[in-house]
Amino acid sequence: MAFLNENYLKLQAGYLFPEIGRRVKEFCDAHPDIAGRVIRCGVGDVTEALPAAAVAAMHKAVEELGHRETFRGYGHEQGYEFIRSKIAQHDYRARGVEIADDEIFLSDGSKSDCGYILDVLGDQNKIAITDPVYPVYVDTNVMAGHTGAARPDGGYEGIIYMPCTAENNFVPEPPRAHADLIYLCFPNNPTGAVATREQLTRWVDYAHEHKALLLYDAAYEAYISDPEIPHSIYEIPGALDCAVEFRSFSKTGGFTGVRCGFTVMPKAVMAQTEDGRTLPLHPLWHRRWSTKANSVSYPVQRGAEALYSAEGKAQVKTLIEHYMGNAAILREAAMAAGMQVYGGANAPYIWVKTPDGLTSWQMFDRMLQELHVVITPGSGFGACGEGYFRISAFNSRENAEEVGRRLETLRS
Amino acid sequence: MAFLNENYLKLQAGYLFPEIGRRVKEFCDAHPDIAGRVIRCGVGDVTEALPAAAVAAMHKAVEELGHRETFRGYGHEQGYEFIRSKIAQHDYRARGVEIADDEIFLSDGSKSDCGYILDVLGDQNKIAITDPVYPVYVDTNVMAGHTGAARPDGGYEGIIYMPCTAENNFVPEPPRAHADLIYLCFPNNPTGAVATREQLTRWVDYAHEHKALLLYDAAYEAYISDPEIPHSIYEIPGALDCAVEFRSFSKTGGFTGVRCGFTVMPKAVMAQTEDGRTLPLHPLWHRRWSTKANSVSYPVQRGAEALYSAEGKAQVKTLIEHYMGNAAILREAAMAAGMQVYGGANAPYIWVKTPDGLTSWQMFDRMLQELHVVITPGSGFGACGEGYFRISAFNSRENAEEVGRRLETLRS
Repeated sequence: MAFLNENYLKLQAGYLFPEIGRRVKEFCDAHPDIAGRVIRCGVGDVTEALPAAAVAAMHKAVEELGHRETFRGYGHEQGYEFIRSKIAQHDYRARGVEIADDEIFLSDGSKSDCGYILDVLGDQNKIAITDPVYPVYVDTNVMAGHTGAARPDGGYEGIIYMPCTAENNFVPEPPRAHADLIYLCFPNNPTGAVATREQLTRWVDYAHEHKALLLYDAAYEAYISDPEIPHSIYEIPGALDCAVEFRSFSKTGGFTGVRCGFTVMPKAVMAQTEDGRTLPLHPLWHRRWSTKANSVSYPVQRGAEALYSAEGKAQVKTLIEHYMGNAAILREAAMAAGMQVYGGANAPYIWVKTPDGLTSWQMFDRMLQELHVVITPGSGFGACGEGYFRISAFNSRENAEEVGRRLETLRS
Repeated sequence: MAFLNENYLKLQAGYLFPEIGRRVKEFCDAHPDIAGRVIRCGVGDVTEALPAAAVAAMHKAVEELGHRETFRGYGHEQGYEFIRSKIAQHDYRARGVEIADDEIFLSDGSKSDCGYILDVLGDQNKIAITDPVYPVYVDTNVMAGHTGAARPDGGYEGIIYMPCTAENNFVPEPPRAHADLIYLCFPNNPTGAVATREQLTRWVDYAHEHKALLLYDAAYEAYISDPEIPHSIYEIPGALDCAVEFRSFSKTGGFTGVRCGFTVMPKAVMAQTEDGRTLPLHPLWHRRWSTKANSVSYPVQRGAEALYSAEGKAQVKTLIEHYMGNAAILREAAMAAGMQVYGGANAPYIWVKTPDGLTSWQMFDRMLQELHVVITPGSGFGACGEGYFRISAFNSRENAEEVGRRLETLRS
């Protein structure tokens, strides 16, 4: 009989968001009169309309496909030149980072890319991951057989966990132990923390010292307003040969349903074979896409391209200002309620210490039952998230203001 | 230093289509006066406009995203219910095959799915693959470490190759050896062969006897006109517990640039652990999608759904009749030129024996230089493809007729 991949059996059963959905449904079913008042600040999903520039570009592309003369079939597996060049120019070269067009690889989102990257990496690599963390980094490594069994605290044997705590301002120092692959995400999901130039420089130094590879998730970079905070790992000298960067249009152009993101794979990034030969990763990553994919839907690529037009950029800016306006309201309300609040300044997530020594899930239940607000329990992101919860700023202004008012009633 | 996946280094350098592109470019650069007359019948890419029903549905979906009230963010990772239910109903239940909606998993195409399926399968599986074959089945197994080194004939150690020859009408009998995973593709790319009910029944019997899993690629099923030929492996009794089926909208709705396909993973399909426990694959496959993807772009899902409307079905039928009309022209012209011709009756590919004992690449060069027609050399699909070439019927009627006329000049 065919064998299955047993690593899947190590995965913890309850993925965070299904469990949240289950509890919300149970509450709403039991309280149909209140159900309509429940406000969701759980999943980090955008709520506002797609930018008009993207809508227009997608309409135009769909129309092209509808006529023989302008029809397009298979495109380049790595993405069309028109979008790869826009990304490399606007997101990197215009900011002084020398990224070539063919170092950009288009995908259907950074969630996928965070998993795909393991395709081209060896199973011998020692993995380091922050705690709390976006669960995809951990679970894709479990699936690939890079870990041992699950531990009672929800972590997995074989991973180096790097605690992110109030003491280190949720930005960990490089570990003393040797790691080959290090997942970093700034602005961070779930804590909303950002890393300074000095902190990222220590990571690049660690990568050079250990010949490690940084897997840098910058999906939320557009939410940075502080001019001192780097948007890309490549703003740190020396990062071009030791870091892969993931980005997404999900939270800039509101593309969570449209699906588009990209990976930056610089040609200078090297990795080794078992017998010590050093080879660039770029040709392997290129081959992965040629063999396993046909890139992203053509109208989606045109929609993403439109986000780089003057009109598109202004519309993205407006969206981000909207969500960050929500973040400010929620942040201030939580502080006014006497809670300890982190994040929410250069990131759309607010990370809050639970009051009264409640666990994360106790706080989840309290918020749901008393305030009718859905948040995300911090423990769902890892053991060090216990005692915290995440509020997402992705909402209408009206809802953010209402959640703010309800939060303030917790003060009493 | 981070380790790379050394299995990638086993891959043969020249992927078929890039090499074709290189030779065509070289020819056109050397003969700028003829370049405009070159007709491409190489890559199997559609040429006609997207069906109007899909265009209208995609416009509507893009418009929905442009308004806050109808905006959609993240959908179900496995695809929206609206499309999964249409597929299960129209492609399966309406044809007497009991497939549940949640046994359909939407993706960006069957090329991707053919690679993804290995995510949930163990590395111990013994793989059987036809020769010639769609290169993606082989290459994804090489990448996953399921093979040894490449052999001089282009095959890989460790794979059971099943020769498809004129003698077996390009449909192999099950091997005597034990295999755990068997890739089958009917109507076949590249040979255009179809499998009869009796032939498929022998495969299902083999799967039961060996407790093997059939990976059945039915991307071209819509091109079958013979009522005796099964469209789905599940038309064979007993297949629901031993087969996974891949399908695509690429060659039905002309979605090669729009990107959508799906996998059918019946809940009855079982696989085993190293210690002999038997478990269903469906939960693993479901988890794969939850963790590693966010499904397909919303407007694309609406476009695919529209292919199931009465209008959409009629438009798909027209498209297929168009391409099969081309196939008949090309098939007859090749026969009139005195060549031995296979396929092209229930499939959009015509598989032709090279005349005069030419190798596949010699024939490629002759077709390019003498007829200015680009075909695909059979040897690019495997050792048993040597001495054959593939003509794709995906073209305008005008081009197909012109290629037909040029082919007939070969007679002299």
